Order: sequence, then structure tokens, then C-alpha cells
Amino acid sequence: MKDKFYAYIQQLQDTITQKLEALDGKASFQEDLWEREEGGGGRTRVIENGNVFEKGGVNISAVHGELPQSMQAYFGVSDADFFACGLSLVLHPINPMVPTVHANWRYFEMYDKQGAIVDQWFGGGQDLTPYYLFKEDAVHFHETCKQTCDAHDPHFYANFKEKCDSYFWNAHRQEARGVGGLFFDYCKATSDKSMSNWYDFVTAVGNSFLEAYVPIVQRRKDLPYGLAERDWQEIRRGRYVEFNLVHDKGTLFGLRTNGRIESILMSLPPHVQWRYDHHPEQGSEEHKLLEVLKHPQDWC
Amino acid sequence: MKDKFYAYIQQLQDTITQKLEALDGKASFQEDLWEREEGGGGRTRVIENGNVFEKGGVNISAVHGELPQSMQAYFGVSDADFFACGLSLVLHPINPMVPTVHANWRYFEMYDKQGAIVDQWFGGGQDLTPYYLFKEDAVHFHETCKQTCDAHDPHFYANFKEKCDSYFWNAHRQEARGVGGLFFDYCKATSDKSMSNWYDFVTAVGNSFLEAYVPIVQRRKDLPYGLAERDWQEIRRGRYVEFNLVHDKGTLFGLRTNGRIESILMSLPPHVQWRYDHHPEQGSEEHKLLEVLKHPQDWC
Repeated sequence: MKDKFYAYIQQLQDTITQKLEALDGKASFQEDLWEREEGGGGRTRVIENGNVFEKGGVNISAVHGELPQSMQAYFGVSDADFFACGLSLVLHPINPMVPTVHANWRYFEMYDKQGAIVDQWFGGGQDLTPYYLFKEDAVHFHETCKQTCDAHDPHFYANFKEKCDSYFWNAHRQEARGVGGLFFDYCKATSDKSMSNWYDFVTAVGNSFLEAYVPIVQRRKDLPYGLAERDWQEIRRGRYVEFNLVHDKGTLFGLRTNGRIESILMSLPPHVQWRYDHHPEQGSEEHKLLEVLKHPQDWC
Repeated sequence: MKDKFYAYIQQLQDTITQKLEALDGKASFQEDLWEREEGGGGRTRVIENGNVFEKGGVNISAVHGELPQSMQAYFGVSDADFFACGLSLVLHPINPMVPTVHANWRYFEMYDKQGAIVDQWFGGGQDLTPYYLFKEDAVHFHETCKQTCDAHDPHFYANFKEKCDSYFWNAHRQEARGVGGLFFDYCKATSDKSMSNWYDFVTAVGNSFLEAYVPIVQRRKDLPYGLAERDWQEIRRGRYVEFNLVHDKGTLFGLRTNGRIESILMSLPPHVQWRYDHHPEQGSEEHKLLEVLKHPQDWC
């Protein structure tokens, strides 16, 4: 399963970066190969200063070795080995009318000291963070998520949509990071789902990503905007930074376990602002976005 | 002691904000009074878009009530009441030649359920974060800290300087946030120091702040700079954000205990950048700063 899934994310990284380069029309992804001292490594691809994308990364990694101490405590095991691989992407467009997007698909195996698999699971998801709310964009993103889910299990969409709203909740601000999407974790074999079923589901979500996001970019990338809209985008990007550095388990885990910092923090936006006690005007487009972030909606 | 120290920080807030307004020459501090539902409140004073200061806050607060659950676990006590007051300041100048500064002086009391004091201590410090290194500025700041310390105890400066370097270590970057200063905590009565001695010391540090910082601002605020220096300042401000959101105990504590978010996050800089894998040119002024941040120096 690990070889099959790693081959899948390698190919998916190629597909996604090629499509995004064509969409951008100016910048191309710069590739960095890196190795992890304790075992494994990754292929980081970053795009900067494009026509459409101001900054973004589409990264894969496959790491293995002894389960770090902090992870042993987290999983309640001792003396285990592990393998983990995944694809993580974050795209920060220039135009404030184009939403930021994040996605991640990952697979984890844990072994005893004799090398036998003792646990294995998939995780991941994809979610959208607009600066200006176009209802049809949120609906399109969620409809694509729902169709992909429904082909595998009628309960998936409602379940993973709700998990996404919970996970990306910026608790200290009492607002969502964005308009959500899907989030799932610890997808393990059960009486009615084999690991092979989960593989089919997770790769179907991975395959749906471009269909979920690209049409939104195409619709919005040439809309006009001014300094005021750009300021708002940069202020909202500040909330994105707050979520990723204060609450995101993946980021904090990476920072605390000697992960490759530049690959982890490629998620941070290029230009960001913090203003004291900023509140958009009642009834403005900016205010409408906030209302939706404070009260997550059903989009389907 | 609590009334005496709170009266002191009220007066110190006035002294500092008056002096900084005069130094800025354009912007004035906007005051927000706020109350804490569970007891107490604060007086937040924020300056934005000045001639010298792009963003900054000089805040006092005095809060009391039942010790929050998370603090009970932290201090290893149960069913306690507390009182805490302090002044916190962060100043982010516009000109990249002027360093950012942070300072904090605080006092804490803990009570049993009969209202008897069971513990009390002072804490605080002040530290400097330059974007371009002028050795004489770091020396002046540290010399001022050292003189203030030496008047109270010959061991204080070396001890609190080292604690400052340890505390403001951005571990995931393996570099210091800035060039340090003083950091002290849990300053309690011992056989050779009374609480009154600690009060004298902490207020002496508070009184030294303007002398430590203002001459540096005056020397650097009119130096010329261009876009390249401003970019570097904004990239370094990104590291400031990373430290405050990932490592700073005070910030995380505030976010997790329902503190006043806008007063806590006034510490974040106004304009910030993140670039992928940014490295200044070998031998450049930017590179020289990094060398010092990676290897904290003795300045006195």
C-alpha cells in the first residue's frame, strides 16, 4: 500500500503542478529535493511571483524511521517504527477575488520492533479560504467534494465537511479559517471498509482537487481590485498565519520534530498585515465574509 | 504590594506613552479601556502610522479571580485565586534601521480559598530586535540593562541576560529573535531578597526603559533606506510573528485563557513577509545580523 500510494502522490504532484503552471502563465515551480537525516525525504515545489499565484507550494514527502518521542506520547505507544507519506499544497493567489486553497492527502504505517505493521491509516482533505465571498464558488467547491464523497459512502460528505469546519476553527478569533471543504483522519480498515476502499476514496479526492479549484480561479483571476481589497486580503492572511502557527497540528508537529522548516512554512502567505482591532464596515462585502466565517454554512 | 505596583505601572504607562508621542511627532496613542468578565481589566494604548512608529502598544492590565484550569495545571495547584498585573509594550518602527523593542514588567499573587496569600512574585524584562545591526546600539541597550542590574545585585545582569537569550530563542529556526536584554521570572522573597527589594529592582528596570531605547531611536530614525531594506525588515518581522505565535508563553497563555485578543496580538508587526527559503547574500549587512542571531554575543 505504501509504495502504491507514494507512486500515486508523485504522479499527482506532477499533474497538479503542470496544470497550475499552465493556469499561471508566467511563473514555474522551483523544485527542491531534500533528505531527512533519520530516514526519507521529500520533493518540494514552490511557485512565487506568478501572474495568478503570489506564492504557493505543492510538496510531497515520504519519511520513516523510529517514531519520534513526541509522536510516541501522542499515539500512546512506545518503541515503534513508522512510515508516513503525503502531498501537501497551499496556494496564495495575488488577486483578492481568488480564494486561497489548501489540500493534503497522507498515509501512515506504524510497525513493532520486528517490523510487522501494527497500524495503518489515511488522512487528508481540501479546504477553501476566500477573501471575498462568491457564493457560487463555495457551492462549486463543496459540490465537487460532495460528489466525490457520495460515490464512496453517503455519510462521508456530511461527516468530513463537519470535521473540516471543526478542525479549521480559529478558536481565539471565534471564526473559521475559510469556508471549509473536507477533513478526514485515522481512516482505518473496519468491517465495511478495507484499506483498499480508503485508498480509492482518498485518491478520488486527490483527483477531484483541480476540478474543485481551477474553475474558481479562472472565473476570478481577472476581476478588478484596488488597494482596499488588497489590504483586506493581507489582513485576512494574518488570520491564516494565526491558525497555522497557533492551532494547526501538522505545522506544530513539523516544527517540534525537526521537520524541514521551509517546506512546512511554505504555507505562510507572502505579504501579510496586522492592524489593531480592525473591523470592516457593517454591510460591506468584507463584513459579509466575516458573518459566514463566524457561522459556518451548508453549501450543498 | 499589588496596589503599589499597579499604581507604578499606571504612572509608567503615562510616562512612556508621553515620551514616545513626543518622539514620534505625528501619531498619538489611542486608548481602549476593557473589562474581563471574570474580574479586572486593562488600559490598552496603541499607536499606528506615525512618523517613527508604524505600530506599537503600551498596555497595562490587572486581572483577578479564580485561577483558570490551564494555570492550575501549570502551577500544580488546585482551587486557588489569583491577582496579576503588568505593563507590556512592543514598538515596531517604520525605518528598518530602528530596532523593534519589547518590554514587560509584571506581578502575580496567588491565594488560598480563605483569601490568604500563598505565593507572590515579580517577572519581566526588556529586549531589542534590530533588522540592521549597529553594534553601539546593542551595547548601549545592554549597558543600560547592566547598570540597572548592578545597582541591585552583581549577579543579576549575567543571569537575566542569559535567561533572555534562552527565552527568546526561535528554536525551529535555531536563531535568537533579537539581540536580547533582560528576562526574569518567579522573583520571590528569599533569605537575601525581600519582595520590597524585588519591587525596587523591577521598577528600576521599568524606569530604565526609555533611557535604554530612546537614544537608539533618535540616532537611527532619519537614516536613509530603500525597498530592499524594507523587504528585509518585513521578512525578519515574519520571524517575530513565528516566535510570538509558536513559542511565546505569554501570548499562547493569553490566547488559551480567553484573554483580550486585540491587546495580546498588538505585538504583531503591521506589514510582514514570508518568502520561501530566503537567504541573504554572504557578507551582506543582512547576513551579518543573522550570524549574531545564530550566536548570541556578550555586549558589555
